[in-house]
Amino acid sequence: MSIESLLSKGIKATPPSFVRGILKAASDPDVISFAGGLPNPISFPQEELLESMERIVKTYGRKVFQYSITAGLPELRQYIADRYNRIFGLNLTIDNILITTGSQQALDLIGKVLLDQGDGVIVEKPTYLAAIQAFSMHRPVFYPVELTEEGMNPEQLANALQNPVKFVYAIPDFQNPTGLTYSAENRRHIYEILKDRNVVLIEDDPYGELRFDGERLPYIGAGKLPNSILLGTFSKTVTPGMRTGFIISENKELLKYISIAKEAGDLHTNIFSQYLIWDYLANNDLEVHIAKIKALYQKQAQAMMDAMDKYFPSTVKYTKPHGGMFLWVTLPEGVSAMSLFPKALERKVAFVPGDPFYTGTEKANTMRLNYTNADCETIEEGIHRLGDLLSTLQLFL
Amino acid sequence: MSIESLLSKGIKATPPSFVRGILKAASDPDVISFAGGLPNPISFPQEELLESMERIVKTYGRKVFQYSITAGLPELRQYIADRYNRIFGLNLTIDNILITTGSQQALDLIGKVLLDQGDGVIVEKPTYLAAIQAFSMHRPVFYPVELTEEGMNPEQLANALQNPVKFVYAIPDFQNPTGLTYSAENRRHIYEILKDRNVVLIEDDPYGELRFDGERLPYIGAGKLPNSILLGTFSKTVTPGMRTGFIISENKELLKYISIAKEAGDLHTNIFSQYLIWDYLANNDLEVHIAKIKALYQKQAQAMMDAMDKYFPSTVKYTKPHGGMFLWVTLPEGVSAMSLFPKALERKVAFVPGDPFYTGTEKANTMRLNYTNADCETIEEGIHRLGDLLSTLQLFL
Repeated sequence: MSIESLLSKGIKATPPSFVRGILKAASDPDVISFAGGLPNPISFPQEELLESMERIVKTYGRKVFQYSITAGLPELRQYIADRYNRIFGLNLTIDNILITTGSQQALDLIGKVLLDQGDGVIVEKPTYLAAIQAFSMHRPVFYPVELTEEGMNPEQLANALQNPVKFVYAIPDFQNPTGLTYSAENRRHIYEILKDRNVVLIEDDPYGELRFDGERLPYIGAGKLPNSILLGTFSKTVTPGMRTGFIISENKELLKYISIAKEAGDLHTNIFSQYLIWDYLANNDLEVHIAKIKALYQKQAQAMMDAMDKYFPSTVKYTKPHGGMFLWVTLPEGVSAMSLFPKALERKVAFVPGDPFYTGTEKANTMRLNYTNADCETIEEGIHRLGDLLSTLQLFL
Repeated sequence: MSIESLLSKGIKATPPSFVRGILKAASDPDVISFAGGLPNPISFPQEELLESMERIVKTYGRKVFQYSITAGLPELRQYIADRYNRIFGLNLTIDNILITTGSQQALDLIGKVLLDQGDGVIVEKPTYLAAIQAFSMHRPVFYPVELTEEGMNPEQLANALQNPVKFVYAIPDFQNPTGLTYSAENRRHIYEILKDRNVVLIEDDPYGELRFDGERLPYIGAGKLPNSILLGTFSKTVTPGMRTGFIISENKELLKYISIAKEAGDLHTNIFSQYLIWDYLANNDLEVHIAKIKALYQKQAQAMMDAMDKYFPSTVKYTKPHGGMFLWVTLPEGVSAMSLFPKALERKVAFVPGDPFYTGTEKANTMRLNYTNADCETIEEGIHRLGDLLSTLQLFL
């Protein structure tokens, strides 16, 4: 009586997460891991959160422990609406916002609400591996569009839109995995391409607050495209352990269906966490806190780039992020980052090979490096180890 | 550009929750609501949880705020394994347990892992409405099996299994919505029917700990059927707001796929909540706490039954629960509980009409009443209002 015969086609089509699969190896204390996407714990305001916990238990009592409504805590949704209205000139009310169990759940809900088998999904090439996972469950057809230093390739996007596409999934700021950011011009271009089409634009923005260089750019669709969805999270600015993200959309009909999927998915997001994050935000200056995180990440990103300049062969290229948590390394053509991975682990350094960030099978010569979860000395040592390995490799090229 | 044309067939097939839909009406302070499934807030050990919060932040620091592993906190999984091994003589290790974002997420994950369109699902008639929701997303064929005072009708179950069925979903203890409990003999009978078949048995057990009368009965499949899944939760014994439930299965292959669906669904369950509940359990006597909840619910159930005897016409029947949170009222044949609902709201009392607990369209003469979230005086007053309404109705029969 094998379970195999009972499994759905959807789960068989869903790749396990490479990152989650190597968590064990990468958490060996001797291994310097650039593999995960962990914030630096300094970005967790522990003392202030503990104060908020005491305050909300005392002030709201049972309410922070009871079942709650699906859309999420009104006060927290109001805070989010106010913040986006202020920073981006949007015109949001709490009815435009639904709290999710982390941004990952938003991807799950969007897949459920929009995708049937065979539907088209446009993604960046490469894109966030857990978005590929969440959408794959529905067995869509992926149309990857090349991501360049400017953003999505507009011609490829227009071509991909000839297919029966339900949505475009984009991460315009400090993209995961590449660290690239769409230019203002590219954003306008994409808007022009999408504005008369009946597709949904998903702008996933977990890192936008973490810009340590230059000015924030306007969203592509938020406030302009009626069928657009903007995703945000407190995971990178307050705490990821609390799994508190949010969906913003001006399309209330779409949000209504997302809410039904959320009911069926987990009833509502942890209400204690929602009170906690709201109370923290109401009693602390988020800008001051974010400024600390940004200064830290900028220093760490710089340390990684400096070390790469020092230890990597000159044939190895990498992106220079202006924010966020990742950069993207391109090895010489023909070098498989995946086959490099076990050799790197032997040298006690971990990264994510490019392969899982593509929707097709690739023997990618790319890798994602995270610079947020190690101090500068550790970063230098890890890049040194990786550089030594790459130099050995050079001998065979 | 209508969103309608972009929606998935799955979301169109998913009914919105009646209970969640009437939350607003039912939360009017003048309305006595027997509609929800809210625990009495006395079941939230607020002071002890606050102590645990302080302890875990101080002891584990960043770990309670950082990303974590998908399967869940090992210490909490060990606690669960030990508890079930001790009470039910099971032989579990932490590898048999996966923490979920409430039990509701377990239903979502099971649907994803096992269901393709057209697959068969056997459910009780009636069954938990949010299970219908979670499974409906995959457009299965439901085979409802009549639920009696004894449990599932064995002949109907055997007949339903002639179809291509992926799993049987059952709530053997203090079932939602009926409050009924399967007899020991019925459990053995169902086990015999299932034991040589390649189907998964889902035993959903959110209320088992809340038996206020008689002895706990053994599970149907747990520890015996290799393809069985047991669901549990801390929502009814500690706090629902923290959304912490769990899946137990001896089939590690099945759990592996459930874990992939969980990665894609929300990465992992709120790690702070997991530490919190584990610390609470490690530092307090859960049995003492549960004993208090049970005494309370027994009194409230009795108050409801006494009031029904006093105020309901004798043609109205109801189940007598030995635990859990609900009882099930059957009106005279031909009376629609759904058409009664707005009239009840006018009289400031709410319940859930039977209809949403059936997978087909029914004009049910049944209704679910919750007795856990109101004190005895309020229960009597609410039943009095409902009884007056039912008596008016009698005139027309």
